[in-house]
Amino acid sequence: MAKAANSGRIVSFEEITKFDREHDVIVCGFGGAGGAAAYEARKAGADVLVLERASQGGGSTAMSSCEMYLGGSGGTTLQKELGYSDTTENMIAYLSEAFGPYGDTERIRVYAEGAAEHFDWAESLGVTYKRAATMARDVVPLTDESLLYTGNERVYPFTEKSEPVPRGHVPSADGDFGGQIFMGALMEQVAKLGAEIVCDADVNALIQDGDGHVKGVVARVDGKNITIRANKGVILTMGGFVFNEDMMRKHIPFLNEVAAPYGNPWDRGTGILLGQAAGGNPINMSEAFLGLAFYPPAQLTYGIFVNQHGQRFVNEDSYLGRMAHYAAQQPGCRLYLFVQNEDYEPSLYLNRLPIVGTGETPAEAAEEAGLPVDIFEQTLASYNKHAAEGRDPLFHKAATWLKPINKPPYAIVSYSFEDLHSPVSDKVGPPMFTLGGLDVRTTGEVLTPDGNVIPGLYAAGRTVAGLPRTAKGYSSGMSVGDATFFGRQAGRQAASSH
Amino acid sequence: MAKAANSGRIVSFEEITKFDREHDVIVCGFGGAGGAAAYEARKAGADVLVLERASQGGGSTAMSSCEMYLGGSGGTTLQKELGYSDTTENMIAYLSEAFGPYGDTERIRVYAEGAAEHFDWAESLGVTYKRAATMARDVVPLTDESLLYTGNERVYPFTEKSEPVPRGHVPSADGDFGGQIFMGALMEQVAKLGAEIVCDADVNALIQDGDGHVKGVVARVDGKNITIRANKGVILTMGGFVFNEDMMRKHIPFLNEVAAPYGNPWDRGTGILLGQAAGGNPINMSEAFLGLAFYPPAQLTYGIFVNQHGQRFVNEDSYLGRMAHYAAQQPGCRLYLFVQNEDYEPSLYLNRLPIVGTGETPAEAAEEAGLPVDIFEQTLASYNKHAAEGRDPLFHKAATWLKPINKPPYAIVSYSFEDLHSPVSDKVGPPMFTLGGLDVRTTGEVLTPDGNVIPGLYAAGRTVAGLPRTAKGYSSGMSVGDATFFGRQAGRQAASSH
Repeated sequence: MAKAANSGRIVSFEEITKFDREHDVIVCGFGGAGGAAAYEARKAGADVLVLERASQGGGSTAMSSCEMYLGGSGGTTLQKELGYSDTTENMIAYLSEAFGPYGDTERIRVYAEGAAEHFDWAESLGVTYKRAATMARDVVPLTDESLLYTGNERVYPFTEKSEPVPRGHVPSADGDFGGQIFMGALMEQVAKLGAEIVCDADVNALIQDGDGHVKGVVARVDGKNITIRANKGVILTMGGFVFNEDMMRKHIPFLNEVAAPYGNPWDRGTGILLGQAAGGNPINMSEAFLGLAFYPPAQLTYGIFVNQHGQRFVNEDSYLGRMAHYAAQQPGCRLYLFVQNEDYEPSLYLNRLPIVGTGETPAEAAEEAGLPVDIFEQTLASYNKHAAEGRDPLFHKAATWLKPINKPPYAIVSYSFEDLHSPVSDKVGPPMFTLGGLDVRTTGEVLTPDGNVIPGLYAAGRTVAGLPRTAKGYSSGMSVGDATFFGRQAGRQAASSH
Repeated sequence: MAKAANSGRIVSFEEITKFDREHDVIVCGFGGAGGAAAYEARKAGADVLVLERASQGGGSTAMSSCEMYLGGSGGTTLQKELGYSDTTENMIAYLSEAFGPYGDTERIRVYAEGAAEHFDWAESLGVTYKRAATMARDVVPLTDESLLYTGNERVYPFTEKSEPVPRGHVPSADGDFGGQIFMGALMEQVAKLGAEIVCDADVNALIQDGDGHVKGVVARVDGKNITIRANKGVILTMGGFVFNEDMMRKHIPFLNEVAAPYGNPWDRGTGILLGQAAGGNPINMSEAFLGLAFYPPAQLTYGIFVNQHGQRFVNEDSYLGRMAHYAAQQPGCRLYLFVQNEDYEPSLYLNRLPIVGTGETPAEAAEEAGLPVDIFEQTLASYNKHAAEGRDPLFHKAATWLKPINKPPYAIVSYSFEDLHSPVSDKVGPPMFTLGGLDVRTTGEVLTPDGNVIPGLYAAGRTVAGLPRTAKGYSSGMSVGDATFFGRQAGRQAASSH
């Protein structure tokens, strides 16, 4: 239908007399999800074509540290070798608490059941993980360990629902460049398996028949639109939409104003728009990951964050996504860390943060920072009194991070969103990428708003509403974990169709 | 396209050999938006068929007080006769502040420019408005005035951006039943004008041609599906989706758990799903109106609301939508009103609210309520100190509502969402209806995700993302105002098409 209405995103199958090319499975996008999909589809014997918009594959996964959030089944090989055990139920409990009503119960279950095997798969690609863990409060390991805590596992209220286990698995070689290690290995394997890879390919339409069956794509390659028939299926793994300003304004207007896009420049929502034109249903479109990486250094966690009213609003030992979620709710997205000199050191990942108050007394620092002194002093007095007892009755910061803040001099540092400078964008604010997209089954099959499958169409990665659905419950490694894990399912499913 | 994929929501025009009926304009839904659309389409000379799912028209508008949020152009007839002037710029400034990045600039402008005329139109239907205003802090007038404040016009930060003017226009006869007065008059006029009205009609598919042009509908009437051709256009005015549990879980999972649906039982999202199947784009789907009508009595506004941490979080003179927006962000959606006996009287609209603490001292009441006493006492001390000076430096509650709360005995009343009993639902929580829907032009033309018009398809009312886009910026009368105003535009536009 709707050629006019869909402005060329759908081409009628019946009107095509001859296809320029023909394959079993067409994978659109060669990042983590697309690479994993192509790998499995090819392994299953399908003739696979990968079309990548950029001049080389990798996507946002290659830009990341490539942590994957894995566990369950008694533990991944890495967890077990390092002495950690992790049950599937424990992982499900954690993920359920993480996303609450936003979570997709079935997706959580399938992921938790398969995550340990997924680690072995990653290793089988040739990706190396060092048999070493760090228990530090880091974002990525500052040395070369491969296992770490990357979320709220040790943080209230998660501790009430599940046993803390480190689930962040990160490739070890060369420090932070896990994404390049992983995507390098994956792309090499996909090529070795004989999938054909075409870069600088702009997939601009799906080919759909009168019954709604997706039969191929139209792609602009070398300045010319070509029609490519997919005998088994088309898989959309084209990233999120954080760089599509029109979609951002329509779907996430508030965060679009206060946070800064993070991802690869082709995160323009094309996969979502193509899927939507074919009858797919975009959901969870208002949600995004955003992160306030005020740590490391971990010792800043001894401080307390207050809003411009001098009130605390979160347990400061929270993971950076949970921090940012609550920070975004504070008036003006303004927030201030109160810290004593002995614990102060600049944040590693956030530069040029203004110190807005200093003093020999908390009141002096608060006054200079423009905070309401009386309320701030009470906030601090209450915090200090309980910290001395090893308790935080309001927000339940873990005892590890509790000590009275009473040694002068003191500083108040602004982490207000307007003071956060993005390394990859002119916008200020915490880094953000989108967590909304097509509604899919765990097989990657794309669903209509009524819950019916669109035959021949699959999707994975940030083109779909996946495992991670809110910043509040995010842990590092959930997006890459989800993209690669469910990318594999989509590849298998597409290859097995008739 | 996509017959299979859209599970019968789209029927191919080319496959229909004979239509059971034929009209110029088909209006689906006979509430405020549908009535207004049918009225204008018929006025413009079109042959109009109205299909209503229920056994009689009225929709959610008939259930409401039918306040309309009107002003601008120097003032409506009612505003002017009562001595109020209101510029279009002032109204635009208010609406822009209300919705911030969520607002649709063009829609705000068109509405503000036409709202005064819209009042005259309502009167021309035979709806009566009494030439009397109340300045009370009410939700609807408790006596029979027709003009009142229904939003945040006198509330910070709105007072920084626009001049306060009362813009709530409510039919006068019979107290609160403005919706029945208005819908009674509108439905009578539509019938008089000669539109054909069919009730118990279940519109279950749109008829669309191969170019995406919408050409009619399929409706189940008297147990039989009939095909109806629309020579000029189909207008979807079928309400929101607050009673569609599947859509609520997918699009507004959090609010779906903490708030209670409010509307007519046919608010099942059918119009949105039909529009989406035809290529339309649902936006703003995560937003809903929700209201915390703790007033009247207005004197409760002298109290302060705190969360379970003993912290204030909003200026208590805010409109009920803004109150609920901030309340929903507090831990556990728990909130408590601290009030001295002299100001206490039960909330008129909220029943059975538990008094969780009483005492001769604030500390005694806070202790009994389980609040952190030290922090609560400081919150109160700071509030009282500034209130004595006629200031509220933290939240800027207006001076009218500021006085120290220092006369015992005291009470703390829970307005936690879990303690709010809905009059129309088994769920607890504040009343909620959805503010997301199809992306449309101000003419009602339905847009694709790429911003193209779907020919022949129009929509209005809560089937679209309209003027009101958040609870935070909502004022009573915005939804009915938007539905009827833009319903009229859609009726005119459809009638004028070729």
